[in-house]
Amino acid sequence: MIGVDWGTSSLRAYRLGADGQVREKRDGADGILTVPEGGFPAVLRRVVGDWLADGERQVLLCGMVGSRQGWVEAPYLPCPAGPAEICAALMAVPFEDAETRLVPGLLTRDAGGVPDVMRGEETKLLGLLAGGVEGLVCLPGTHSKWARLRGGRIEGFETHMTGEVRAVLLAHSILGRLAASGSSAGAFGRGVERAGAAGGLLHHLFGTRGLGLQGELAEAETADYLSGLLIGHEIRAAWDGREAVHLAAAATLAAPYAAALAQLGAQVVRHDDDVVATGLWRLGQA
Amino acid sequence: MIGVDWGTSSLRAYRLGADGQVREKRDGADGILTVPEGGFPAVLRRVVGDWLADGERQVLLCGMVGSRQGWVEAPYLPCPAGPAEICAALMAVPFEDAETRLVPGLLTRDAGGVPDVMRGEETKLLGLLAGGVEGLVCLPGTHSKWARLRGGRIEGFETHMTGEVRAVLLAHSILGRLAASGSSAGAFGRGVERAGAAGGLLHHLFGTRGLGLQGELAEAETADYLSGLLIGHEIRAAWDGREAVHLAAAATLAAPYAAALAQLGAQVVRHDDDVVATGLWRLGQA
Repeated sequence: MIGVDWGTSSLRAYRLGADGQVREKRDGADGILTVPEGGFPAVLRRVVGDWLADGERQVLLCGMVGSRQGWVEAPYLPCPAGPAEICAALMAVPFEDAETRLVPGLLTRDAGGVPDVMRGEETKLLGLLAGGVEGLVCLPGTHSKWARLRGGRIEGFETHMTGEVRAVLLAHSILGRLAASGSSAGAFGRGVERAGAAGGLLHHLFGTRGLGLQGELAEAETADYLSGLLIGHEIRAAWDGREAVHLAAAATLAAPYAAALAQLGAQVVRHDDDVVATGLWRLGQA
Repeated sequence: MIGVDWGTSSLRAYRLGADGQVREKRDGADGILTVPEGGFPAVLRRVVGDWLADGERQVLLCGMVGSRQGWVEAPYLPCPAGPAEICAALMAVPFEDAETRLVPGLLTRDAGGVPDVMRGEETKLLGLLAGGVEGLVCLPGTHSKWARLRGGRIEGFETHMTGEVRAVLLAHSILGRLAASGSSAGAFGRGVERAGAAGGLLHHLFGTRGLGLQGELAEAETADYLSGLLIGHEIRAAWDGREAVHLAAAATLAAPYAAALAQLGAQVVRHDDDVVATGLWRLGQA
């Protein structure tokens, strides 16, 4: 079968063997925002056409491809949800070349009743569940997801806007004017530590400028200090300070999260980002 | 005398009588970022030239005009600082038409040792001190300042990046795509309340999107909900939950802060934004 994690700005296609192993993997820049109206079949053919010609007859899609801006809109499925509920809610996609289905996103509500949503991450979580993972999972990203896995299902989750806030502050706020390219593990760690101080995030953000103006933070350290500050705030809000954290992300994102979690004393269990392929395969089997 | 509060994006000039009363007031869009190199004398002449021709011989400037990007850079004066310290640190400005001086900004450090700075707000605080104000002062703005006045001096302060974070999120993040023009006191109040929930600011920000996607927050309510959320976080971090808060700002900014403080149970004492004129006049007298 073919599994595709099709997001806003990129896609990743997997060709999976009957044993669930990844036989081939392709990364593309054809995120859904780059696809013209009615253009999804053509893009899919361009990316995996040779696999289809080679006999693949089953395609499973997950991610923002199921959003209003995607190929077919799949309504959000409420939590708790496990493989059975998600499998029963797969949506058929009109594609002549293969039997094609789409994984719905999930909806949850936090203690305050405020709704939260994911699209794509639910399939990663199914991959972790297939591996027997239970407990607290962190999926870092533009919009980081912290999910609770229990009894073989996704019980609920919460999103933190960390990556996007970092990007817009560096590109468009006064903090970006103080930042030069460069990286500094020391500055990142200072940011993580600062997140635990009194004053709140809005004050800590301005402190980045105070440190820069006083020559106590170099321009090449600013971006990493800001990352540590924001990731530190995210972790302190999402983690209870005791539980082990399952972390699944590509290496560039996993590294700072693992470093911050270790600094704060968390036991971290690392998982491969391709766990999404396991989730797609499991749904394909069911 | 003439007093000028000369900021990044605008300036306000006051002609003050010998009794300290404002005889005339002018608002201009000539913020320091609009002034070409070497252009400060010409802009000042254009704005207050007739007052100078009419015999005024003393000019006092405060605000970002004393920054590196301004007319003359005045080093930050450390807190605690009162009228005596600030008066002793006034900087002479080379301007042929009048005896011209510049008020230095202030530098403080919070409990974590992180530096914080202000330029212009110290003169507003001197105006409040001249009126006998002591205690906790909130000066809302792009970068809101919360200052502690004690024993006739500015003991220290902390800055929250609230206004700028709101602006960049609305202009450049996914939250702005959900926002249409409109205002809603109800949505503002919901945001203020939400700021007290578990989960932290980075989670609460994404909740704005969750509410919008689920049809529980209208597009015309999004900007005010976001304002309430950010101002709510600022107040909860800066205010101890008991003390009266002195609030000095122009009406458009004072209104949401007064509403949020009242919602959270604070006793609010309102002051006019032109309190900066009082501060300039007091320094001019000394």
